[in-house]
Amino acid sequence: MTNPRILPGTAHPTLGDAVSEALGTEPVECEVERFPDGELQPVVGHVRGEDVYVVQPTGRDVKEHLIELLLLLDACRRAGTRRVTAVVPYFGYARQDRRTRAGQSVGARVALDALAAAGADRLVVVDPHTPTLEAMSSIPVETLSAVPLLAAALAEHTPAAAVVVSPDLGAVKLAEHYGELLGRPVAIVRKTRLSGSNVKAEELVGDVVVRPAVIVDDMISTGGTVRAAVKVLLAHDAAPDITVAATHPLLGDRATDRLARLPISRLVVADTVPPPRIPTLPHRVRTVAPLLAEAIALPHGGEPLDTLLLRG
Amino acid sequence: MTNPRILPGTAHPTLGDAVSEALGTEPVECEVERFPDGELQPVVGHVRGEDVYVVQPTGRDVKEHLIELLLLLDACRRAGTRRVTAVVPYFGYARQDRRTRAGQSVGARVALDALAAAGADRLVVVDPHTPTLEAMSSIPVETLSAVPLLAAALAEHTPAAAVVVSPDLGAVKLAEHYGELLGRPVAIVRKTRLSGSNVKAEELVGDVVVRPAVIVDDMISTGGTVRAAVKVLLAHDAAPDITVAATHPLLGDRATDRLARLPISRLVVADTVPPPRIPTLPHRVRTVAPLLAEAIALPHGGEPLDTLLLRG
Amino acid sequence: MTNPRILPGTAHPTLGDAVSEALGTEPVECEVERFPDGELQPVVGHVRGEDVYVVQPTGRDVKEHLIELLLLLDACRRAGTRRVTAVVPYFGYARQDRRTRAGQSVGARVALDALAAAGADRLVVVDPHTPTLEAMSSIPVETLSAVPLLAAALAEHTPAAAVVVSPDLGAVKLAEHYGELLGRPVAIVRKTRLSGSNVKAEELVGDVVVRPAVIVDDMISTGGTVRAAVKVLLAHDAAPDITVAATHPLLGDRATDRLARLPISRLVVADTVPPPRIPTLPHRVRTVAPLLAEAIALPHGGEPLDTLLLRG
Amino acid sequence: MTNPRILPGTAHPTLGDAVSEALGTEPVECEVERFPDGELQPVVGHVRGEDVYVVQPTGRDVKEHLIELLLLLDACRRAGTRRVTAVVPYFGYARQDRRTRAGQSVGARVALDALAAAGADRLVVVDPHTPTLEAMSSIPVETLSAVPLLAAALAEHTPAAAVVVSPDLGAVKLAEHYGELLGRPVAIVRKTRLSGSNVKAEELVGDVVVRPAVIVDDMISTGGTVRAAVKVLLAHDAAPDITVAATHPLLGDRATDRLARLPISRLVVADTVPPPRIPTLPHRVRTVAPLLAEAIALPHGGEPLDTLLLRG
Amino acid sequence: MTNPRILPGTAHPTLGDAVSEALGTEPVECEVERFPDGELQPVVGHVRGEDVYVVQPTGRDVKEHLIELLLLLDACRRAGTRRVTAVVPYFGYARQDRRTRAGQSVGARVALDALAAAGADRLVVVDPHTPTLEAMSSIPVETLSAVPLLAAALAEHTPAAAVVVSPDLGAVKLAEHYGELLGRPVAIVRKTRLSGSNVKAEELVGDVVVRPAVIVDDMISTGGTVRAAVKVLLAHDAAPDITVAATHPLLGDRATDRLARLPISRLVVADTVPPPRIPTLPHRVRTVAPLLAEAIALPHGGEPLDTLLLRG
Amino acid sequence: MTNPRILPGTAHPTLGDAVSEALGTEPVECEVERFPDGELQPVVGHVRGEDVYVVQPTGRDVKEHLIELLLLLDACRRAGTRRVTAVVPYFGYARQDRRTRAGQSVGARVALDALAAAGADRLVVVDPHTPTLEAMSSIPVETLSAVPLLAAALAEHTPAAAVVVSPDLGAVKLAEHYGELLGRPVAIVRKTRLSGSNVKAEELVGDVVVRPAVIVDDMISTGGTVRAAVKVLLAHDAAPDITVAATHPLLGDRATDRLARLPISRLVVADTVPPPRIPTLPHRVRTVAPLLAEAIALPHGGEPLDTLLLRG
Repeated sequence: MTNPRILPGTAHPTLGDAVSEALGTEPVECEVERFPDGELQPVVGHVRGEDVYVVQPTGRDVKEHLIELLLLLDACRRAGTRRVTAVVPYFGYARQDRRTRAGQSVGARVALDALAAAGADRLVVVDPHTPTLEAMSSIPVETLSAVPLLAAALAEHTPAAAVVVSPDLGAVKLAEHYGELLGRPVAIVRKTRLSGSNVKAEELVGDVVVRPAVIVDDMISTGGTVRAAVKVLLAHDAAPDITVAATHPLLGDRATDRLARLPISRLVVADTVPPPRIPTLPHRVRTVAPLLAEAIALPHGGEPLDTLLLRG
Repeated sequence: MTNPRILPGTAHPTLGDAVSEALGTEPVECEVERFPDGELQPVVGHVRGEDVYVVQPTGRDVKEHLIELLLLLDACRRAGTRRVTAVVPYFGYARQDRRTRAGQSVGARVALDALAAAGADRLVVVDPHTPTLEAMSSIPVETLSAVPLLAAALAEHTPAAAVVVSPDLGAVKLAEHYGELLGRPVAIVRKTRLSGSNVKAEELVGDVVVRPAVIVDDMISTGGTVRAAVKVLLAHDAAPDITVAATHPLLGDRATDRLARLPISRLVVADTVPPPRIPTLPHRVRTVAPLLAEAIALPHGGEPLDTLLLRG
Repeated sequence: MTNPRILPGTAHPTLGDAVSEALGTEPVECEVERFPDGELQPVVGHVRGEDVYVVQPTGRDVKEHLIELLLLLDACRRAGTRRVTAVVPYFGYARQDRRTRAGQSVGARVALDALAAAGADRLVVVDPHTPTLEAMSSIPVETLSAVPLLAAALAEHTPAAAVVVSPDLGAVKLAEHYGELLGRPVAIVRKTRLSGSNVKAEELVGDVVVRPAVIVDDMISTGGTVRAAVKVLLAHDAAPDITVAATHPLLGDRATDRLARLPISRLVVADTVPPPRIPTLPHRVRTVAPLLAEAIALPHGGEPLDTLLLRG
Repeated sequence: MTNPRILPGTAHPTLGDAVSEALGTEPVECEVERFPDGELQPVVGHVRGEDVYVVQPTGRDVKEHLIELLLLLDACRRAGTRRVTAVVPYFGYARQDRRTRAGQSVGARVALDALAAAGADRLVVVDPHTPTLEAMSSIPVETLSAVPLLAAALAEHTPAAAVVVSPDLGAVKLAEHYGELLGRPVAIVRKTRLSGSNVKAEELVGDVVVRPAVIVDDMISTGGTVRAAVKVLLAHDAAPDITVAATHPLLGDRATDRLARLPISRLVVADTVPPPRIPTLPHRVRTVAPLLAEAIALPHGGEPLDTLLLRG
Repeated sequence: MTNPRILPGTAHPTLGDAVSEALGTEPVECEVERFPDGELQPVVGHVRGEDVYVVQPTGRDVKEHLIELLLLLDACRRAGTRRVTAVVPYFGYARQDRRTRAGQSVGARVALDALAAAGADRLVVVDPHTPTLEAMSSIPVETLSAVPLLAAALAEHTPAAAVVVSPDLGAVKLAEHYGELLGRPVAIVRKTRLSGSNVKAEELVGDVVVRPAVIVDDMISTGGTVRAAVKVLLAHDAAPDITVAATHPLLGDRATDRLARLPISRLVVADTVPPPRIPTLPHRVRTVAPLLAEAIALPHGGEPLDTLLLRG
Repeated sequence: MTNPRILPGTAHPTLGDAVSEALGTEPVECEVERFPDGELQPVVGHVRGEDVYVVQPTGRDVKEHLIELLLLLDACRRAGTRRVTAVVPYFGYARQDRRTRAGQSVGARVALDALAAAGADRLVVVDPHTPTLEAMSSIPVETLSAVPLLAAALAEHTPAAAVVVSPDLGAVKLAEHYGELLGRPVAIVRKTRLSGSNVKAEELVGDVVVRPAVIVDDMISTGGTVRAAVKVLLAHDAAPDITVAATHPLLGDRATDRLARLPISRLVVADTVPPPRIPTLPHRVRTVAPLLAEAIALPHGGEPLDTLLLRG
């Protein structure tokens, strides 16, 4: 087999370049022209007969980046690539994985079907919001996790007394993964209905009193979930040493401001999307480039996924 | 449009007949020949130009019932039906909705793709184990719930002090749905790692002391989950009045025996699969026939799904 | 058959509403929630069993409107529509109908495949930039023309001596269509290479001396093509009475300014996208709502397309 | 190209292992977990980037083995195989190759479509019951024959005076193939309507008087066809030296008993399914492992199929 | 549902017109322009929203008629038909239903896939050469038979002593169908290898001495099979009263001459292709128009296929 | 990767052989049997595991050659090729790229879909009549041009004063390509409506007085377009030195006669179809074999398409 080639889209070129460098290959050139009415027109370099990996998260601007990804896949297919894999470190629309009321769309499936229709042969994602993403896709999906990376970065700032906190029920499995890697117990924030009324309140399951806390989630978008969790932690007498960790720092400007105003000590995130600038908050960004590089190299070397997941 | 026609498969003919009767139509005749080596050969009655609903849960014997369903769909399509909908009250293989280790299959998607390949135009399911089933399917899926039915049946046996119990984290949303309908708080059984060791223990979140409990789940298969929950409840001083409710009574003989030996007061289930006989345990079976009949009638009358969900 | 139902997307709701009114039906309700990271989540009203027409041009912001269209089609399909037709008066990405150099994408096909993958059964477009659009689509396409509408609007301002001008070779057939309807000759602006050099110049084919001119094109985007045509016309002593007509007024703010500064007397456009505001330039907007309404009504009444095209 | 890898399913692991050994490769590990309600969950070993052959006949228990095959194919595809071929020595449901009365299914097509939907790239079968199987499949099919193998085994027990007997009209071409390889004439058993009545009788075409006979068929299932043929042969004064040969010994317990009670001298079969134990009847099993190994090796070495068929 | 509309292609317009008249509808107009290099360009009349049946056998000139059929189906689909059914009374390429040596194509599948790709929703055929045609098609196939029609026509010319003759093993089931309808026994012509040599000879199975004979086949193409059968019959002292019956009179000029020179008394065929002119041979043509009309009317009236087959 | 293998169809075997020779490989053997009723049955040589290029223009007899191409592709796919590319130097039905009136088909798409359905993985064409062919195809298309080849052949016969002539508006871009390569200006023949009437006349745009002319087009079919252009040129006092150049000499006998009678000095064409014999007209045929060979070799060597286009 030929060596893999990396084609960095414009959504996050530094990540694509880093993956390419990690693999010791030259990235495929790619220019994307932008027209006044919003149309994009890519031109990709020579990829005939190659095994190409298009690296393009579909966020923060999911519309722009998703359409560009579709066009890049089409350009590769027409140019005669042997195989083209969409590497989408942050997969937008993963939250729309079912209808919760009549009349909704299921955006995750729409995005997946569009990728397949545009010519993708495989898909690589990192910590997708919906764990069943692979079952929704008509093409094979490889699901990687940045949790070991982030847990390693957290380790030094996580005192023995610390507790990992899942900010809602949906993140409990993730929190348990962090808890296991860090050797810490897990507490859960959960909304409950107050008995005999319709009022909802945040409830805290687990012991947090005078403990440092590590709130974990797959992504931080508006910062609202984190804010609520911080409030509950403090109300339950957690120690004033709160760390927040998440794979996808999807934070827009408003969310960044909101986060900066919270009494949190540090933020640990991956670079699945270009990391935000938050001058007033100590934060650490761990890159997923080596993780992606290894996942891409494996199909050529034949090493099993399990090994990668343990190592990653 | 023509009236809907019900074709009851052999997995649960009484349910199919009941749906047909509820709609005031004659069920489509259907015979399935069984050969010594396990092959099936169906012959369906006249369905040319009809809007046919094949009613066939794919359990308890998922292999037999799934293959039969594929053949019935094929027979309908070849016979010239205008549209054929698979009504699968219990959808087998829904637990295989992702790979949890390298080398696994995703059985839910395999089953869904086989249904579509065999000619199904639509799918109707009840309380599927994986809530994102519709996103995995290439054909439209209508997801119904038996929870309102079962909650109504539970109401009379649920004292004011009772608590709804989710036997694991996966059933919490379901438990909250029951809790809301019954006006009762929700407690959660959860496996945790004991601090500083690798031993796991069942933890109970919520107040159950001297309260009657209603353990709820989507299905009861081996009865193992129920047994563990009962044990935890009693260890936490719940009242000795425990009810178990689930949509799918998938219980085999061994599971039935296990359940009969537990200190539970009653069992409330739906008839999405033929209900088991449990002589020694008071149990109540609520039929989903009217729910299915209504969902089938709606597309012809045009009433919205929301209304049904509220009413169902 | 049931009556058609119109679902106006948010790209151009007034047009969708007008079509619905022309057909004497209530438009289907549709809300589109917008999240901070650019994700959209639509909720459509009751469309079960209906023959739905989603009216949504994919411009001026082609990214936003195309993704929304995909989600709306998906929502309709899942909600159980009998058939769903995408009515896309302006079809973005139609200019990308072939690769003109290695490494490009063919955006028109990418957009068409995404529409089909999202569930569209049919497509209705108006004056697409590429006349072979229907051959690129896997679903049937109905191609309508606003030219008769615009020609009727032009008639009163077109003196007997006027000449219709095609601003480049690509618009000649369109110009001939206008010329035929208005009973006027056609002149053509064409880029040629100056003999013996590599310099290109605009050449004018046909007689324009002291004649009023009507420059026609399918769309006005940056206004650059119009500006060049005006320059050539004046250089060839056309009369200072220049009208510009186009189906799709895709003009952004900068293009509007550019147009307003040109010595043109009036602008005649359709409302396939929301028409721009150009305070200083007399312009007339003719609505395509009746044209779309008629095309939608026909499949139900059975009248042939030819009749419509002649009448439209 | 990489070397082929054999993945033996649980339907006939000894055959899969033998094929693997013949190719000098280690078989891919494969475990299949079985749940009480009949669900299967496979885990396959490392196959990333490999050219995998899943060896799994879909008999004797066609339901179990077909579903397992679908899941194995899915597991391989998701694990990133370069290509996955279903090697199905006995292909169940091949008898359902057309409808013979209204309302039937065409099971052969249903099974083939399910295989393709589950991810199979190619299919290899041995002596399928329906000779047009390849035309029914959307993926390429390679059809092998065990007849040369079995004819070689028969040769020593086939005196010069022997006659090959086709037990019905459907097996005549097969019988002629045996006849040609053994250099013996062919007689045919055929059901005919007695003139002037509706009674059917077995008729014998060809000369069998005092001749040893070799009854041949593609499969023996219930043994009923063989029994009828034996009866006719004896009624027509064939010698009491009757051999029965068939590719697929699908015999269940009852059929084995029936066969053991017939006046037949020996049974010669292949091991396309695990061969039955018939203590009281001399029988010989010829393995198709080398035939399969050669067919699998060829695509890598490039030798033509014709050669194989002649040699096989 | 709307009434069916018949669109007669140019391969056999009188049959299409007859079907249309039998249904009491006006045939859809259809013109096919033919260009010097062999390209065809059809224009079909108004079919929007209609349930259209394109009547077009793909013989005698299978290339011309198959391509025209594809174009007609495409024209219908684009024109907005509700459903389009290909009615192909003679289905060309049905003989290519498997590969008999390496390197061949399977033309039947190629033709079927092209029909489906061109937009056919269903297929209706009469006595296809390969009985498993429906299993090869991705769209539903309705298989009709002209045998009852032809048997009725034969009845008067079939003395009590007559015997139905299958000219080869492939036609035995057909011959048995005729035999059953006519109440006559069946004899079979069969090629056998002479013992101890490689010479093949025609063998006759059954009693034909001084009996009138009715040779039956699905089609007569070159007349070679008939000629061989006649020769064998006479060699076995059949009476010199030989009738030949076949559904598809595919005879070209050379075959017509050959047939005219044989000592046969009469020819009975259907009009699935335009019947040939054979001045010197008494022949009778039975039309399949009522059979097709009934099959087309049924889906609208809902009467079952079984009834039709019995009546046909 | 393996070396490419050329399979020459029977439409133009000398071209296929020449391509094969240029690549230094043995052509794949291919026999096509032709039956009296027009059916074809190919047998292709050993291609298992190969990267096969089927060289087959679909003209002059488009029906015959298109069907044969479909069968050859199917034969290759079933024989186990690794990849099969249809090399169609002249692509028939390219003129049917849109409907120009209601009820027409779009033959280009029908042909493309049939190729894909028959198993083609890629398509290579030369100067297709419709420039958007690649957007209509579901499989990747590589579009080559014979214009540089033909321009080189024209150079010696093209005096400095010569003008390139586009015989209609559709060929202007092609003429400009020739003009650029030859360093000559371009004139255009164009049909216009005479002012105030419905009469159409040929108009000439550009200076041709006493200039030698080179009329260029993509194909010459009936010769009618050339005849009209010659007439207009002479009427506008062009020099009596007229050359005609076209990629595809699709000329039938009648067209050849017509051309021979025109006052043209020479004809320059490519051999995308077998070149016609025109005894009385000096003509030059340039072969596209090296161009095709290079395009086929590139995917194996990895050189970019751009380079080829410039060099070709």
